[in-house]
Amino acid sequence: MIIGFDVGGTNARGILMDANGETIIDRVARSSDGSGPELVARLAEMVAELSERNDAAIDSIGLGIAGLAHRSGVVRYSPNLPNLIEFPVGSELASAVRCPVTVINDATAGAWAEAQLGAGRGVDNIAFVALGTGIGTGLVVDGVLLMGANGFAGESGHMVVDANGPEHVTGQRGPWEYYASGSALGRMGREAALAGKFDHGIALAGGIDAITGYHVVERNAAGDQQATAIFDEFCRDVALGVANLVLILDTELVILGGGLTDIGEPLRDGVESWLRKLMPGGSWRPEVKVVIAELGVEASTIGAALMSLDPPLDA
Amino acid sequence: MIIGFDVGGTNARGILMDANGETIIDRVARSSDGSGPELVARLAEMVAELSERNDAAIDSIGLGIAGLAHRSGVVRYSPNLPNLIEFPVGSELASAVRCPVTVINDATAGAWAEAQLGAGRGVDNIAFVALGTGIGTGLVVDGVLLMGANGFAGESGHMVVDANGPEHVTGQRGPWEYYASGSALGRMGREAALAGKFDHGIALAGGIDAITGYHVVERNAAGDQQATAIFDEFCRDVALGVANLVLILDTELVILGGGLTDIGEPLRDGVESWLRKLMPGGSWRPEVKVVIAELGVEASTIGAALMSLDPPLDA
Repeated sequence: MIIGFDVGGTNARGILMDANGETIIDRVARSSDGSGPELVARLAEMVAELSERNDAAIDSIGLGIAGLAHRSGVVRYSPNLPNLIEFPVGSELASAVRCPVTVINDATAGAWAEAQLGAGRGVDNIAFVALGTGIGTGLVVDGVLLMGANGFAGESGHMVVDANGPEHVTGQRGPWEYYASGSALGRMGREAALAGKFDHGIALAGGIDAITGYHVVERNAAGDQQATAIFDEFCRDVALGVANLVLILDTELVILGGGLTDIGEPLRDGVESWLRKLMPGGSWRPEVKVVIAELGVEASTIGAALMSLDPPLDA
Repeated sequence: MIIGFDVGGTNARGILMDANGETIIDRVARSSDGSGPELVARLAEMVAELSERNDAAIDSIGLGIAGLAHRSGVVRYSPNLPNLIEFPVGSELASAVRCPVTVINDATAGAWAEAQLGAGRGVDNIAFVALGTGIGTGLVVDGVLLMGANGFAGESGHMVVDANGPEHVTGQRGPWEYYASGSALGRMGREAALAGKFDHGIALAGGIDAITGYHVVERNAAGDQQATAIFDEFCRDVALGVANLVLILDTELVILGGGLTDIGEPLRDGVESWLRKLMPGGSWRPEVKVVIAELGVEASTIGAALMSLDPPLDA
């Protein structure tokens, strides 16, 4: 059987799947805090727990992680896991549990799961766009999951879409993530409130500074026209980056994933509508579909498990 | 033996290569004007000429063309060849010469030629960026040439990099091509001249309106500091879009092609230097190399011929 982990800033979640990666058999979770060696010890505990509880021999393990996960299994940089920078989590875990370990970016893993078992089944050209605190993407072109020279492909959230825009924490001006992540939606709500254009948002949140994306989404769902204007601008900003990906990759299906997909249909419809307006040469191209991910928060764990079955070679 | 064509707005150039696509044996060229059927007749004439002159049986033909060349061999839209819109040039030529024909975007073809026989030999992750009147790109990731759902992958020139920028002919605001093509370099020269910042350019061109990219390049080569400032800004704008491609695809080698590569080292060095400044997370990533294409104006003809050996399947 195989195991997939998704290691986030707070929790590490694991699943046990059958040897073909078709069914989830068991689940486990622990905190992800502490040092690299502490995390490895806790991952090894979870492997033992899944194995013993299900009387399962473990053939391979996949580990999804936010940030620059090198093909070699070394985490070069992970914004949510500062203790893991330059830590060879792959080889350390492999030694601890005596089993091959594949380390992969979490959004890349999520894309592969959705392509194999989720909303992208049977589709060869997919952009999986995980909208959360930031933006992560995983890209499938001509049926192949893109990895790139180091395994870093899909860092599309850092793509500059507004070269004269504000400076982001990355030092760049106007990257996509600045405009189209969950953090961005909250900021847009606060900016609108400051400009006197989100009155009910202030009331709901209890003050301008307390406004988050949640309050924009709530008021939009309630039909508040001020919230709808903010949310529409947000959907345009998501679609702007998606249009760039479609131009570069000739994507036929966009799968929206990540925490913001709790919004559901208003997000899907808003992004798809704006994508149609923003794509140049639209009449010469088949329309691109936008759908919500099917595997929810488990996409990255499932994808990591599946990747362990057919790991990308170290470049 | 195999034949490759590059059909541009003015000329159609063809080459005959050996059956393995290793050596160029002969060359031919004709005008590309007229209707779709007229172009097909002229291409068929060139096939006959190459075949007879070299006593060669033709196994396959590849045809590179600017614009949206569909996998099926239909040119959906070509900005330089308005008579070819929605014209099934692939099947028409195949019927005329009784030989399989593969139709492919010219920059995609150029990328494949550089990857196989040019500056990208032995490299698996390549962005080929053809800088001419516009920007065309061809992309190789994990050793695979990206085609996409329709064969339209690599339309990166339309990627928006300045969402609040001026409106382009495509209807978009601030696409990369607006800032970083040969046309852009000329416009930047005229804008600088209007602002009193390109005095020698006006003298060289004989007037502000007559300034083109050529004059900026000439004065830059002569050490004119005003021209150097314009050219440096241009190199930054090229690098801005290249950085986006590297983030999305984890490219290890950028090959600059197209007419602007006549500039040579100043362009290569300028783009590479700016790329290092613009890439976020630079210290965690191996540096990306920027080189000038090796196959010059024949990259697309060679690439088209090579693609005919292993044509992408119709989706």
